[in-house]
Amino acid sequence: MNRSHKPRTATTPHPTENLPHLANMDRRQRRAAETRLRLFRCALQLFALRGFPNVTVEDITQAADVGKGTFFNYFESKEHVLGVMAEIQLGKVREAAALAEHGEQTIQATFRHLFHRAAEEPGRSPDLARALISCFLASQAVRRLIEHNMKEGRRIVAGIVAAGQKRGEIDPRLKKEKVAIQVLQAFMGTVLFWSLHEDPPLDAWIEDSFQHFWRGVALSGEKQKP
Amino acid sequence: MNRSHKPRTATTPHPTENLPHLANMDRRQRRAAETRLRLFRCALQLFALRGFPNVTVEDITQAADVGKGTFFNYFESKEHVLGVMAEIQLGKVREAAALAEHGEQTIQATFRHLFHRAAEEPGRSPDLARALISCFLASQAVRRLIEHNMKEGRRIVAGIVAAGQKRGEIDPRLKKEKVAIQVLQAFMGTVLFWSLHEDPPLDAWIEDSFQHFWRGVALSGEKQKP
Repeated sequence: MNRSHKPRTATTPHPTENLPHLANMDRRQRRAAETRLRLFRCALQLFALRGFPNVTVEDITQAADVGKGTFFNYFESKEHVLGVMAEIQLGKVREAAALAEHGEQTIQATFRHLFHRAAEEPGRSPDLARALISCFLASQAVRRLIEHNMKEGRRIVAGIVAAGQKRGEIDPRLKKEKVAIQVLQAFMGTVLFWSLHEDPPLDAWIEDSFQHFWRGVALSGEKQKP
Repeated sequence: MNRSHKPRTATTPHPTENLPHLANMDRRQRRAAETRLRLFRCALQLFALRGFPNVTVEDITQAADVGKGTFFNYFESKEHVLGVMAEIQLGKVREAAALAEHGEQTIQATFRHLFHRAAEEPGRSPDLARALISCFLASQAVRRLIEHNMKEGRRIVAGIVAAGQKRGEIDPRLKKEKVAIQVLQAFMGTVLFWSLHEDPPLDAWIEDSFQHFWRGVALSGEKQKP
């Protein structure tokens, strides 16, 4: 598969490896970010186990081993915890955009990397993926919360598509905004389908979906063998 | 769009139009099938309104205006109601397979028709689509129930893909089983994404997804303009 994931370094502790912008923070800021991420991960596990409505803030703080008050230093409500997921995914989209701008690898490789990177969090378990999608579906508050991040994600992905068109990799007749929607739909459809089948790992399903996505947008000359 | 939906005829009452096999039933059987479909539609509306766990069988029978006992003539449990959705969708896949076998239209047109036909039920409202996906995600009983139908759906879609390969419309290097998964994922991803955005109608989103899907599988010579 040869996925070029960002390697862990001594200065990037693993709880924050999926939030690359944290690398620029001082120790206090980084610890706060780690606590926030821990609350998020514990909350997700509980949501997966018991369902979103049956989990209290106290359940989450107990699982994360912090005081109940600490929770509200980081999140307005239980719903807001899920906003972290949107932030994590948006961080990965920004990472892909930076790669595309840098121009050292093809747009094809950039998108492939993005598909696999974005699969990391939901791919932890089918239970978790189902819980995550359920929470998005169940609460209008959550949907409003992630709406802004989703729009921003679409905008950035459209920019990567435009870069691909400029470089002659992606069919220039396609509308970049529409291709961006296909990226999100392909990703979400794959996670949903996989989560219903419980057939790990997600990564293999994502690879097939990426290949299909790319065949749909690549210029004919750029087409790779299936 | 020029969608060639099956026209309503005097002998096909509209509550069963999405279950074409009902046309071969006698009046008693057809009335039973209609009651079953009415229970299903009322249940879905209630699930969308209140969430799956908060709806009782009595709520459903009241909404459908039948006695509580009647429910259990048709369904073992509340979960089993959702199996009807899988049946309806499977009916549409079978319809597409029959079209493909008949050979009067292209496989491209057959798939396009299938995408739009399958969008009819979830496309009734974003609330309904969200409720439907949530129910699939929430209950293992429901997942087991639809698993068989999903597998059968994949098998039949793979058959249509093979027909497309035989006719020179679909790239013969692609694995038909993998293309079938892409069909299901594209469809589910589109419904999920649309249901989060509440931006009607689903049909326009489905058309874009179909076009993207087809670009990904068509033989280069067969490619249509985006």
